[in-house]
Amino acid sequence: MSHSAIILFAHGARDPAWALPFRAIQAAVAASDQTKKVELAFLELMQPALPDVAERLIQEGVQSITVVPLFMAQGGHLKKDLPVLLDALRDQHPEVNVTLTPAIGDVPELTQAIAQWVIQVAV
Amino acid sequence: MSHSAIILFAHGARDPAWALPFRAIQAAVAASDQTKKVELAFLELMQPALPDVAERLIQEGVQSITVVPLFMAQGGHLKKDLPVLLDALRDQHPEVNVTLTPAIGDVPELTQAIAQWVIQVAV
Repeated sequence: MSHSAIILFAHGARDPAWALPFRAIQAAVAASDQTKKVELAFLELMQPALPDVAERLIQEGVQSITVVPLFMAQGGHLKKDLPVLLDALRDQHPEVNVTLTPAIGDVPELTQAIAQWVIQVAV
Repeated sequence: MSHSAIILFAHGARDPAWALPFRAIQAAVAASDQTKKVELAFLELMQPALPDVAERLIQEGVQSITVVPLFMAQGGHLKKDLPVLLDALRDQHPEVNVTLTPAIGDVPELTQAIAQWVIQVAV
């Protein structure tokens, strides 16, 4: 059993198709890194919620969780809502290592990749 | 004067820092493609709004606008709100060529880049 997990954390929306790109990323990560469980969780409007996913992973024996916010930028959701969830998780499970990564837009290699794509597609 | 423009379209947030990644993408695109004006517009909570940016560009002589939604996925904002804005723009300026690109999460090369980054940063 894997002891490390990745939770891809997305906003959620009423439209079920919203989840498709996140599922594609999940599948690509899971295919490339078979040493970790790779799960998807949502802030609102979609299930599963982050606390539920984390709880299940911990019950399965996971000792280290990397939370990756699949958000374009940091606003109230990542600065206020997510820290509350992570603080609660760390309080309830101090034995579990919970790591938070930057958002997509805070990663220069990703903003550069997006910029290069924009240049290609612009008419 | 350039006759083509790119409008990078983002959600917006109350936190001013939300705009920073989008400004970084804007700067990278503008630096690489100096044949086009490159502007940023927001759906809500931040200025400028898309119709205002488009109107100004058209008054400056722009005849072709590519709208690039810097959203992770397609939900109500891109399926309902954005088409209303684009329809109004095309109605008011039928002489202007308005092109819409996919969202970030609909572009396989970008979801792959995101997945590769996730694999690198996960503990």
